[in-house]
Amino acid sequence: MPAVSEQAAVLAANEAFYHAFATRDLVAMDRVWARAVAVTCIHPGWAPLLGREAVMESWAGILGNPDAPSIRCIEARASIYGEAATVVCYEVVHRGYLVATNLFVRERDAWKLCHHQAGPTTGQPPDPAAAGPVSKRLH
Amino acid sequence: MPAVSEQAAVLAANEAFYHAFATRDLVAMDRVWARAVAVTCIHPGWAPLLGREAVMESWAGILGNPDAPSIRCIEARASIYGEAATVVCYEVVHRGYLVATNLFVRERDAWKLCHHQAGPTTGQPPDPAAAGPVSKRLH
Repeated sequence: MPAVSEQAAVLAANEAFYHAFATRDLVAMDRVWARAVAVTCIHPGWAPLLGREAVMESWAGILGNPDAPSIRCIEARASIYGEAATVVCYEVVHRGYLVATNLFVRERDAWKLCHHQAGPTTGQPPDPAAAGPVSKRLH
Repeated sequence: MPAVSEQAAVLAANEAFYHAFATRDLVAMDRVWARAVAVTCIHPGWAPLLGREAVMESWAGILGNPDAPSIRCIEARASIYGEAATVVCYEVVHRGYLVATNLFVRERDAWKLCHHQAGPTTGQPPDPAAAGPVSKRLH
């Protein structure tokens, strides 16, 4: 498969993750995450969550919380390392920006998320205008 | 190579990263990072740094700063995904704990760092006593 298509496939998997997040769709979120390998997740400020059960339980709480912020991914950049791939991106939340690392693995010809870390940043994306209006306050 | 040895090799590469960091050894830090693939780095609160030049420039500044905190890695857990591997760990700094994701790729039979993200956490490692005395203040 050409490298360009692989990049597009990884970015599509990343978009599926943020779409599930933004639409509070727990079933879609479950589909996004890998099943054949151990998964881990570090939500902003949290301790690392180890294993699928702990990770999905956290998403059930987050997606079921009516006060959870809206979220959008911008400036996503994919890097492919054989059977694994990362996406480094900004997350646009109502309070400002976060930065995230998303790690994907190839599972039955699909890219599946196996690790996510998001945290605060004082940085701004190269083209903040593309993110739309956000508050400059992070907290 | 048996899986146990691979895990040990990845954890050794992770230790080499934190040893270079703790001893302010820029030459060793340079050796830790991959050369054959694009590298990225998200220091706590920073915007993502893209490319080896930007990443190594940041380390030159951090390791050359006499006020940079001491650092130690604990609770490191490695996961191997073919030619890539992650380590999720706590970083013990004088102000408390950070959590980090370190991504390694196999390069000429050695595991080399290609991405690092560290950020604040309100979590504590399962065995905080192992970390030694630290302040509970993160900021």
